[in-house]
Amino acid sequence: MVEKRMPLPVAEAVERVMNYKKRQEKEWVPLEKAHGRFLAEDLKADHDVPSFDRSPYDGFAIIAEDTTEASQEKPAVLEVIGEIGAGSVFENEVKQGQAVRIMTGAQIPDSCNAVVMLELVKEKKDNNNSYIEIKRSFKAGDNISFQGEDTKAGTSLIDKGTCITPGISALLATFGYDKVPAAKKPVVGIIATGSELLEVKEPLQPGKIRNSNAYMIMAQIEKAGAEPKYFGKFSDDFDDCLRAVQDALAEVDLLITTGGVSVGDYDYMPAILKELNASVLFNKVGMRPGSVTTIAAMEDKLIYGLSGNPSACYVGFELFVRPIVRHSLFTNKPHLRKSKAVLGTSFPKPNPFTRFVRAKLFDEDGQYQAVPAGLDKSGSVTSLAEASAFIVLPGGTRGYEKGMIVDILLIDDEQGSEWPWANIVPSYK
Amino acid sequence: MVEKRMPLPVAEAVERVMNYKKRQEKEWVPLEKAHGRFLAEDLKADHDVPSFDRSPYDGFAIIAEDTTEASQEKPAVLEVIGEIGAGSVFENEVKQGQAVRIMTGAQIPDSCNAVVMLELVKEKKDNNNSYIEIKRSFKAGDNISFQGEDTKAGTSLIDKGTCITPGISALLATFGYDKVPAAKKPVVGIIATGSELLEVKEPLQPGKIRNSNAYMIMAQIEKAGAEPKYFGKFSDDFDDCLRAVQDALAEVDLLITTGGVSVGDYDYMPAILKELNASVLFNKVGMRPGSVTTIAAMEDKLIYGLSGNPSACYVGFELFVRPIVRHSLFTNKPHLRKSKAVLGTSFPKPNPFTRFVRAKLFDEDGQYQAVPAGLDKSGSVTSLAEASAFIVLPGGTRGYEKGMIVDILLIDDEQGSEWPWANIVPSYK
Repeated sequence: MVEKRMPLPVAEAVERVMNYKKRQEKEWVPLEKAHGRFLAEDLKADHDVPSFDRSPYDGFAIIAEDTTEASQEKPAVLEVIGEIGAGSVFENEVKQGQAVRIMTGAQIPDSCNAVVMLELVKEKKDNNNSYIEIKRSFKAGDNISFQGEDTKAGTSLIDKGTCITPGISALLATFGYDKVPAAKKPVVGIIATGSELLEVKEPLQPGKIRNSNAYMIMAQIEKAGAEPKYFGKFSDDFDDCLRAVQDALAEVDLLITTGGVSVGDYDYMPAILKELNASVLFNKVGMRPGSVTTIAAMEDKLIYGLSGNPSACYVGFELFVRPIVRHSLFTNKPHLRKSKAVLGTSFPKPNPFTRFVRAKLFDEDGQYQAVPAGLDKSGSVTSLAEASAFIVLPGGTRGYEKGMIVDILLIDDEQGSEWPWANIVPSYK
Repeated sequence: MVEKRMPLPVAEAVERVMNYKKRQEKEWVPLEKAHGRFLAEDLKADHDVPSFDRSPYDGFAIIAEDTTEASQEKPAVLEVIGEIGAGSVFENEVKQGQAVRIMTGAQIPDSCNAVVMLELVKEKKDNNNSYIEIKRSFKAGDNISFQGEDTKAGTSLIDKGTCITPGISALLATFGYDKVPAAKKPVVGIIATGSELLEVKEPLQPGKIRNSNAYMIMAQIEKAGAEPKYFGKFSDDFDDCLRAVQDALAEVDLLITTGGVSVGDYDYMPAILKELNASVLFNKVGMRPGSVTTIAAMEDKLIYGLSGNPSACYVGFELFVRPIVRHSLFTNKPHLRKSKAVLGTSFPKPNPFTRFVRAKLFDEDGQYQAVPAGLDKSGSVTSLAEASAFIVLPGGTRGYEKGMIVDILLIDDEQGSEWPWANIVPSYK
């Protein structure tokens, strides 16, 4: 009577989903609104930085050779023939025996080749002329920020798909982007199902729980870089659910439903997918939580049936939705970044499925320690609030001991990974 | 002729600034807009989660004692007297020899004490009655998610000042927060000064650079959790600058100026602070970059004079502005989080000042490696785009060698630190 579903290894499930990856269009966003968006083009330096030789200090631009013989006892004396504020250019020629007062960031006059810091000279007046005394020698190139020393024109600086940080905003401004080529955000729809769901503001009732998944996923969508669109919650009428899914599909780039993917009598998602004639990529994955995760496609649009259990729903999003969203935002590292950590608790019981344990990361002198956050059950909601990583425990016949080095996937990391699944082998098959 | 400034140790400078810390007011934000905001109250569980004993699977709720003798050869046979969908409550009494079909998440009937998964029973029909066969024994409590096992009513779950993540959104929904108590964002003003500055969209001109600091700081302000307000750039007229600062102060919670803090002839900030009768907390810090960072207060409002050099400006913001913003958002860990890393490059030359080297972090099997990003000069802008940490090299008479373990401050980490400066001792005094 119960439908038998064959579990798919996680890596293969992710691979099937990634077959539907595509890039978003590009749009131009004002620089001051671009923080947190994703670059849709590689960022190249279109000019040298600095674009001219400049002074890193307030001081005097000199010809270094004038100081070759300078010493405490016999300082070099140079005539000050003018001054250069930041942003201006000195038009006259500086000759041997002469110097020009120069401000931080100002352009070095053509014939000068060194800068003496203000603190190192003694200034003197004589017959309306100004002089400086310099008590040591300088070499050509001393205290000059050379054209192109920070970056050369043509250098590729930032890859497309990178999230725009404050440092990248500075670079964009430097290269004249008052508008930034950013990936258009994909619209991700959410439909919650389940007759046990109360609205957040409703008082608790026996047997019921508040709808937390929809709000959690809206936040996950935003964090991934997309735009959430919530269509509400639907309960136990099949036709209502079907129509909601159909209507939503027309308005979004991809659609997430929560709940109703199990094999129980009220689990409508399989029937809805059938009715829609959607092609089901899989309906069982060799993972805990989230083994009932079901993903289907209508032409090139993905429909995600995530579990109604909060932890299972959360993990399903990060493994299967996030990489599709991030790829659409032009990155080539769309998956959660993999690293390693010292396991903080033993998991003595073997499990045939690969486990994703919500974990808190500590770092002891730069070495990660991963400790399970809250209760390790698929229904747990508190574990999600504190988790910053998943501990990955591949399925098989063995348990895992405290102190072992294990794979982790970082949830809050923006660096991402091209393909974290290479060495995570499931052994339950 | 040159004003002598005494450098203050970094820790002492930060401490002086933190004397001006204060909390923002609280405001109520709709849950779906709360992602990324900061909690203004501790989050406590106001009810048990789960709030009732529930089934983690689709299956049958039974009385465990009915299966004590069950085996492959002599299965226990129970009469199925009804079913419970998720969200509903079974009203009748379940007696010995009886079972109830139950859906994932549904409430366990009063007299039942175990759940048998759907896959483990054989269903039968007989005279319009339904029966199940169970081929092994179950114990009281098997496959039940107990009331309060995830969290007990009254448990303190999340501290105020925490940034609202997707997992926290789920918790907030669970506890009925359709509106969330969030810290009101402080408004941080920005004024750029410097006659060398071009607007971002202007073509390059000899001796000039584009105004990158303002856009960088706007993004840093957003990232810190505050609201940026940009008042534009002002060049070489003292009265214009003074008026701009005065006007801006009336509209913001704190004000940042960039440039003009050095001791050059066009560096107006010291004179403006004097004219305003602001009390200067310090005008020189024993750090590189950013030694000329100047911070003052007008009554309880801070005025930041950050260096016009991009790297110095960036570091100055993260060390001195971020903790004030974050404290105002109710956290007790307002500073960048300190960790340790393996130093990826040697710094053979000693420096009397404490250096903050913009660095890329790699992790090798969970152990941080820190490598300087781009050019380590205060004017560098490319180094900021790639940096995710500062390497902290305390000032003194020694250099630092590749492979040493050094302190780092993490730029992209949301965890924060109460006081990272305890063991970072300057030795230049």
